[in-house]
Amino acid sequence: MKNPQVRALVFDVFGTVVDWRGSLIREGRALGAKKRLDVDWTAFADAWRAGYQPAMHKVRTGKLPWMNIDALHRLILDELLDQFAIHNLKEAEKDQFNRAWHRLSAWPDSVRGLKRLKKKFLISTLSNGNVSLLTNMAKNAGLPWDCVLSAELFHHYKPDPESYLDAAKMLDLKPAEVMLVAAHKDDLRAAKRCGLRTAFVRRPKERGPQVKPDLTADRVFNYNSDDFLDLADQLGA
Amino acid sequence: MKNPQVRALVFDVFGTVVDWRGSLIREGRALGAKKRLDVDWTAFADAWRAGYQPAMHKVRTGKLPWMNIDALHRLILDELLDQFAIHNLKEAEKDQFNRAWHRLSAWPDSVRGLKRLKKKFLISTLSNGNVSLLTNMAKNAGLPWDCVLSAELFHHYKPDPESYLDAAKMLDLKPAEVMLVAAHKDDLRAAKRCGLRTAFVRRPKERGPQVKPDLTADRVFNYNSDDFLDLADQLGA
Repeated sequence: MKNPQVRALVFDVFGTVVDWRGSLIREGRALGAKKRLDVDWTAFADAWRAGYQPAMHKVRTGKLPWMNIDALHRLILDELLDQFAIHNLKEAEKDQFNRAWHRLSAWPDSVRGLKRLKKKFLISTLSNGNVSLLTNMAKNAGLPWDCVLSAELFHHYKPDPESYLDAAKMLDLKPAEVMLVAAHKDDLRAAKRCGLRTAFVRRPKERGPQVKPDLTADRVFNYNSDDFLDLADQLGA
Repeated sequence: MKNPQVRALVFDVFGTVVDWRGSLIREGRALGAKKRLDVDWTAFADAWRAGYQPAMHKVRTGKLPWMNIDALHRLILDELLDQFAIHNLKEAEKDQFNRAWHRLSAWPDSVRGLKRLKKKFLISTLSNGNVSLLTNMAKNAGLPWDCVLSAELFHHYKPDPESYLDAAKMLDLKPAEVMLVAAHKDDLRAAKRCGLRTAFVRRPKERGPQVKPDLTADRVFNYNSDDFLDLADQLGA
């Protein structure tokens, strides 16, 4: 059976579209300067992100009720403030810092690449980030989404199959008409098992200079690309 | 208590942003020419729209299970094809005609007005139309939404209170930080009862030259405007 034409590209966001690590370190340093904190903000950013998978796992297994990512980020943040001995933040300052995730910066090619891809495809987020986070981020970073889809709408975090299948359904498309674009191979493999097409994007700097992610091209994905401009070239967009 | 600043404008869509009637008549005539149909497409368009409130009421009262607007439009369409004695459409043609609602044209001021309003506010749909309908419409008509919110996400059609309150919650805003923009006073009154701000927009041509809608300014709304450009002027956007 011939594969149908791809109509929509749905994007993983944290790490694929935006540089969460560089942005969090920058926000941490600004907060540290203001509040006279002596903190290793690189370690803090990595610890914040490291708390993310276990927190979603607790939701997935029912140890926590459904919570959106803002709420999970805040749970992790409260633990980290304790661990890093940061005790002088007011509630409004904690809330403002938690929303650093709403202000993450795009990778240098993201906006230009998305604008090109948008001419040929419907482009949407498909992120575990909540709708308000993704919407505020897009407005802040100039990301030109046609639509903002989130695990929050389906009450299933990626890589649960429902997150991919419900997204295709909400776009009124067959899974094979939708292609996930992501820098994370586990995300892509889960999408592929649900019948979506897949495009891997290399983001060598996502986890900083010390961590070398697996950047090898993989034939199981429909596309392997260096960034969104390269992907646009390959897709003729 | 002082009202908080408005952060987001959420828009009714059918009639407020797009001209459903003119668009449906145009699509009907094109179909009629192709299929050699002798049909009063103005009456057809009005009948299609007239079926909309009763169909949503059946969902609201449990006579129909939850269905999105594409599905409700199709139920109504199938009845109308019978009533108007149109028997020569293939399934693909019916489906294509049902998606005329995905291709509705914007009022002349909509795109320019939205672009101005977007500079100062988060702008989103808040429509009974489903997500794919609204997303395809935006792409087709160039509507620059920051976010696509729909009754489909909340499984409550406007004017159910949940539709307004869940929209504010999903944007992570207080109801009073959100303003509904609509051409329909019942929609605005329901939003106001939920604590949202309200902006009335006059759309004198929505129901055609024979129907004179109530266009009088109403002091219960925060703004009364002639179109989106006038609203942008009044909001300093």
